[in-house]
Amino acid sequence: MKALILAGGSGTRFWPASRAGYPKQLLPLKDGLSFLRRTVDRLLPLLDPQDVWICTGRSLVDEVRRQAPEIPPTQILSEPVGRNTGPAIAWTLSSIPVEAHDEVLVSLHSDHWIDDEDSFRSSLEKAVSSAARRDAVMALGVKPRWAEIGYGYMELGELVDPEVDVYEVRRFLEKPDQETAEGFVSSGRFVWNSGIFVFRIGNLLGHLWRLERELMTGLDALHRDPEALDRIYGTLPAVAIDTAVMEKLDSLSTLVLDCGWNDIGSWQALAEILPSEGDGNSVFGTAVSIDAANNLLYSDSGTIAVLGVDDLVVVRSGDAVLVIPKRRSQEVRRIVAELRRQGRTDLL
Amino acid sequence: MKALILAGGSGTRFWPASRAGYPKQLLPLKDGLSFLRRTVDRLLPLLDPQDVWICTGRSLVDEVRRQAPEIPPTQILSEPVGRNTGPAIAWTLSSIPVEAHDEVLVSLHSDHWIDDEDSFRSSLEKAVSSAARRDAVMALGVKPRWAEIGYGYMELGELVDPEVDVYEVRRFLEKPDQETAEGFVSSGRFVWNSGIFVFRIGNLLGHLWRLERELMTGLDALHRDPEALDRIYGTLPAVAIDTAVMEKLDSLSTLVLDCGWNDIGSWQALAEILPSEGDGNSVFGTAVSIDAANNLLYSDSGTIAVLGVDDLVVVRSGDAVLVIPKRRSQEVRRIVAELRRQGRTDLL
Repeated sequence: MKALILAGGSGTRFWPASRAGYPKQLLPLKDGLSFLRRTVDRLLPLLDPQDVWICTGRSLVDEVRRQAPEIPPTQILSEPVGRNTGPAIAWTLSSIPVEAHDEVLVSLHSDHWIDDEDSFRSSLEKAVSSAARRDAVMALGVKPRWAEIGYGYMELGELVDPEVDVYEVRRFLEKPDQETAEGFVSSGRFVWNSGIFVFRIGNLLGHLWRLERELMTGLDALHRDPEALDRIYGTLPAVAIDTAVMEKLDSLSTLVLDCGWNDIGSWQALAEILPSEGDGNSVFGTAVSIDAANNLLYSDSGTIAVLGVDDLVVVRSGDAVLVIPKRRSQEVRRIVAELRRQGRTDLL
Repeated sequence: MKALILAGGSGTRFWPASRAGYPKQLLPLKDGLSFLRRTVDRLLPLLDPQDVWICTGRSLVDEVRRQAPEIPPTQILSEPVGRNTGPAIAWTLSSIPVEAHDEVLVSLHSDHWIDDEDSFRSSLEKAVSSAARRDAVMALGVKPRWAEIGYGYMELGELVDPEVDVYEVRRFLEKPDQETAEGFVSSGRFVWNSGIFVFRIGNLLGHLWRLERELMTGLDALHRDPEALDRIYGTLPAVAIDTAVMEKLDSLSTLVLDCGWNDIGSWQALAEILPSEGDGNSVFGTAVSIDAANNLLYSDSGTIAVLGVDDLVVVRSGDAVLVIPKRRSQEVRRIVAELRRQGRTDLL
């Protein structure tokens, strides 16, 4: 078993703690461990560091190496520019020695949260064995715990591997509206798309050559002339692996995770996984609260003091302070847009 | 005319911007000018820098000298320890050369706000001339603009100097309860005690010798042996000039200021004097606000970003961030007490 951790993302949902050069996956969480570090630790009981690849961006690669020192540096790939998950996965797979192409690889994101790590690993082992046994491509699903409108869904079809409860994936569905999401959840036939894929390396490379010839010939040129990385990589088709390959497969199958998976897409979601005090305040760093409940108080240095406020996100990070109601924490992107409009790229 | 600026105060009402070594009077306000600097500037149209004395604390004296470089350094007195306004005023007066004892001095605080500075100076000149003409001690009053329960009041008596509307002070009244304060204001016979006093230097020294003999003999010993400052000053009776002298005088008189005087006792009061944007946010430093109104955003460095919050005080200063509703900003002292209890003197 091999693993590919996709660590190239950059986003604005955790501004000001996450910045262009320090995105969500690198942020320290409880115990000072980042999402990325936790992703590595979650896998290591199942495989050796020599079996792990990480694909990240050039501006992040030093910090990724620092946070994952046991992964061989040659297996930490550094994209000159982000081109979505299709090129990231295809580039990494095509750089893995041909001798390993028969093995099963798990491709997963570096910035997701798992409550029950033992259950996760146990499911992953089942998926790997099923994918190997059936030479199948699998997309792991997540049993929906609420009618989330921010996730993609997959519709379950026939049971295809009764031994480990693996189902056919009938179709992918983009982020639904609230009513549709509620229908999905109550039907019991839809699961969240976790973005975790399991497949034999050679198998997915075959699909990529068949479905994304331009991408693969570009990568071929790149491997023949590594000096041309910067020039070639930026011209690769910027496609997501989901739409480029997964949605087009005749026989995609899924195993459904039930391990508290969450992609932690906002400060509010982060508050739910941070340790919380008696008054419901989730604290990272140092904080003093009086007569204040259910706040997220996140500080990378110094102290946050609150009195008489509830349900707020208060973040102090670097040279910025953010105050926003928890339930509106998705709107942090509006602040980022305003800072960009003002030319305050120093804060982004 | 001489002036004594009392700049020794230290308080917690503006934590975290004000700290033990950097109290309210030294805080930068609009245009980067502090309360102290504004107090000096307010007086200089009326007198020369050589006629100004400042009494401050030893830990503040360097910053006071920096902010008021035109005041002769020998006239910036530095208390080894704070002993309230009685010793501060008596020490300063007794250090003024005897040749000047016939002149009128204005004693005032360094951390008050005046909206209409011309009106203030005009009232001050009237008070100085009345005090000189009648050889009287005067306590300036302020026409109350609301039923404040945080100020002391003075009851007006007979008109004693019709030329400039100076009244007898019948009695001092400590901070009243709300109902009493409302009665005071509606009666028209009560004024706020501004803490500004006007008197001939020799006159007040005479009252001090009569009413505070222990204090004055202590100061006498101190002047004979300046080396003994540290030992003696801490043993002086720690009395306020109001109770030690002013309340005991048979013939205290007052002139009533109507110039937007405010002692700015809380973040909420400060918000009212800082420049405010269209959405009612008062900003010091750099801030971005979206869909947020009537907040005070005060930052000594870096940027504060708020979205979807109203009527808050958000302060970033040094290594601390404070978030508190404006209307509860008096309660910042509870945070300071909690930090002290936790031994976090580094933050105080």
